[in-house]
Amino acid sequence: MLEDLKQLVCRANKSLKELNLVKWTSGNVSFRDSKTNLVIIKPSGVHFNQLKPDDMVVVDLDGNVIEGHLKPSVDTASHLYVYRNRNDIHSIVHTHSPFATSFAIRGLDIPSYTTTAANIFKDYVPCSDFAAIGEEEIGKQIIDYIDLSPAVLLRNHGVFTVGKDVEDALKAAVILEETAEYAHYATLHDPDLLPLRKEIIEQCNYFYKTSYGQTEKKDQII
Amino acid sequence: MLEDLKQLVCRANKSLKELNLVKWTSGNVSFRDSKTNLVIIKPSGVHFNQLKPDDMVVVDLDGNVIEGHLKPSVDTASHLYVYRNRNDIHSIVHTHSPFATSFAIRGLDIPSYTTTAANIFKDYVPCSDFAAIGEEEIGKQIIDYIDLSPAVLLRNHGVFTVGKDVEDALKAAVILEETAEYAHYATLHDPDLLPLRKEIIEQCNYFYKTSYGQTEKKDQII
Amino acid sequence: MLEDLKQLVCRANKSLKELNLVKWTSGNVSFRDSKTNLVIIKPSGVHFNQLKPDDMVVVDLDGNVIEGHLKPSVDTASHLYVYRNRNDIHSIVHTHSPFATSFAIRGLDIPSYTTTAANIFKDYVPCSDFAAIGEEEIGKQIIDYIDLSPAVLLRNHGVFTVGKDVEDALKAAVILEETAEYAHYATLHDPDLLPLRKEIIEQCNYFYKTSYGQTEKKDQII
Amino acid sequence: MLEDLKQLVCRANKSLKELNLVKWTSGNVSFRDSKTNLVIIKPSGVHFNQLKPDDMVVVDLDGNVIEGHLKPSVDTASHLYVYRNRNDIHSIVHTHSPFATSFAIRGLDIPSYTTTAANIFKDYVPCSDFAAIGEEEIGKQIIDYIDLSPAVLLRNHGVFTVGKDVEDALKAAVILEETAEYAHYATLHDPDLLPLRKEIIEQCNYFYKTSYGQTEKKDQII
Repeated sequence: MLEDLKQLVCRANKSLKELNLVKWTSGNVSFRDSKTNLVIIKPSGVHFNQLKPDDMVVVDLDGNVIEGHLKPSVDTASHLYVYRNRNDIHSIVHTHSPFATSFAIRGLDIPSYTTTAANIFKDYVPCSDFAAIGEEEIGKQIIDYIDLSPAVLLRNHGVFTVGKDVEDALKAAVILEETAEYAHYATLHDPDLLPLRKEIIEQCNYFYKTSYGQTEKKDQII
Repeated sequence: MLEDLKQLVCRANKSLKELNLVKWTSGNVSFRDSKTNLVIIKPSGVHFNQLKPDDMVVVDLDGNVIEGHLKPSVDTASHLYVYRNRNDIHSIVHTHSPFATSFAIRGLDIPSYTTTAANIFKDYVPCSDFAAIGEEEIGKQIIDYIDLSPAVLLRNHGVFTVGKDVEDALKAAVILEETAEYAHYATLHDPDLLPLRKEIIEQCNYFYKTSYGQTEKKDQII
Repeated sequence: MLEDLKQLVCRANKSLKELNLVKWTSGNVSFRDSKTNLVIIKPSGVHFNQLKPDDMVVVDLDGNVIEGHLKPSVDTASHLYVYRNRNDIHSIVHTHSPFATSFAIRGLDIPSYTTTAANIFKDYVPCSDFAAIGEEEIGKQIIDYIDLSPAVLLRNHGVFTVGKDVEDALKAAVILEETAEYAHYATLHDPDLLPLRKEIIEQCNYFYKTSYGQTEKKDQII
Repeated sequence: MLEDLKQLVCRANKSLKELNLVKWTSGNVSFRDSKTNLVIIKPSGVHFNQLKPDDMVVVDLDGNVIEGHLKPSVDTASHLYVYRNRNDIHSIVHTHSPFATSFAIRGLDIPSYTTTAANIFKDYVPCSDFAAIGEEEIGKQIIDYIDLSPAVLLRNHGVFTVGKDVEDALKAAVILEETAEYAHYATLHDPDLLPLRKEIIEQCNYFYKTSYGQTEKKDQII
């Protein structure tokens, strides 16, 4: 079942490696099908270059494994918590990308210093409180902060981003790491650097949402 | 029309990714044909690895789309403003390369600390004022600063470089990021580091322009 | 003899390069066969991309070359010292990965700032005293510290990690460099940053060991 | 003439790019043939991925072009100055690798903080005075400092390394960048960090020269 979507999610998980966002077996992408409300997610602890569409695990919103021969990601309960609480979110990406994670270690939000950051994250990328791995705690932290931005830094852990589709969630993960890299370099020299002004951030965000890209966008994972 | 040039511009846009200057779909290269004064530019929000020559958009200097099935880059009006005001510029490159952008966030020029920087940028790479995306504002900032150096840092945004051809504009974008990387490392240790002396910069720049490279250069995009 | 294991060790050594953990010919992986107690190790000073399974050197626990046409790694005596003193260790990885080595230069342990670090290294990755290359001194340092964590920073030199198999030793080397990268970035801004609390580290480590990954794991070197 | 050597030098120049030591067309490798005393060097301003063995330029020690259809590197006179003054040097490598160049910008030697640095560079990599590009000035700086170490940082410019063959000169360039990277990270946290003690450096250097690698080494460029 859902063969096309298993292929999509498998491809998206592999792209995390090609985008230099993950190392070894950490990190994952999930997708929630709008027709069945089933969620497809990476199996736990499998190398990205060895993933095949058939290795993807299909679970329902209560965490029952519907299909798949492998154990799902240890983050599955948290992905499901987010899907149950936000009908508009259809994809979640998790990474430990290094520049973003260094802000998560410090428990700091990343303010928007560039037009690109303002386009995607509005005022800032928030940093959550600490949450244990394995149950819904991480999902609760994401829900607490995800209204502010499609990316949340998870305290002393890493990054979660969301989107209406896989493309959007992946883009937020890529631009977050780029944004954290700029911000790290610039604030090393000048820790009190001012972010963009609030009205400029709003103009950027509005322009981006209304004018960037093609009107008819295919789902185009790289 | 202009099939060879669409191929050139498509190839140049793809090279931005191979040169590690761009992420996701941000950044672009344009070229102005000297016979027709038509400009060829990347479409908005399309992944670099999916670009085909036919996806390139052909516009005239007033921004009318002459050929192409996709929306042109949101930076098109600014590229055209530069082309209308500088007959010697035939190619423009835009990136958010991270070390250079970290200087743009701080609103700082990058002085020439190395012979390579002096060769290409003379005294320093200037940082412009902030400009909104979408209309000609960015182009105006470029024109204000481009006499000083073939590269301009756009405040809180990224990088624009220009050249008499695609090869020169791409080279300026590559050497700018290299220069910003050196400068970042060195000034972290010593914020008051002195750049090269003015007369040495002039000697470097003169020697580079008269002696470097082959006399008969083909347009050789990597 | 041991043809399958020579292939495994050859592949593991090549993966060091693909994982960006080594440069030129430095670094090595060894494996101890549980049936014969023979150890297979990289030859000294050979480029990783030129290694063939037949170039691997087979030695016994006293350092006698049992098979192989090349000189074994200069670190062989230290690998053997570790194997003789720890029956549970079956693979050792050595690298000079740059972020981890920068901590080894400073003689500093790396505390666990993230859940990932706590999963693999418990409280911290210890930094040993200085030891000369060529005899057993490095092995003695590893034995002194390896109870604390499967990774040891070797003072003013680099990194040694161990595991019950090649997969585990390689994973520790990859996650150590990732952990050192985060820690470098974060502590540059805030040198007095607090690591995770001890009880959280223990929870992470327990959860990781009991719940992460698939129950039936194949030896799956990337 | 010298077809095998042109292939060797072409391959070595291309390897600079694969080793991430150069960008665009900057940097070069030369080799001096011990039978004819002719020197083979990269042509000026040609992209590394486009180099073919036939593009290599053959010059005599006085700088006369003996064979080749392209202009030689602008650094040729300086390479020749070194070859005329040191019979034991048969290969020279030039790069602008970023971490090493950041020390050259600051005019600082790089002390040996690791066993690897001590193995190759002994006490430290010296930084020369400034020298103009195009004539023998750079060569004179190299000769002034090359007795101290097979690598010299050229003030406000970049890196020159030498060797008895291409393999050795390339290795020095790779290990210099690795060494500069460690040293940059570690001294950012602790600017007064002590290098290895002199007697340890001597032990490392002696051990490396007498015990590392295979006795019969082929010229094995990666």
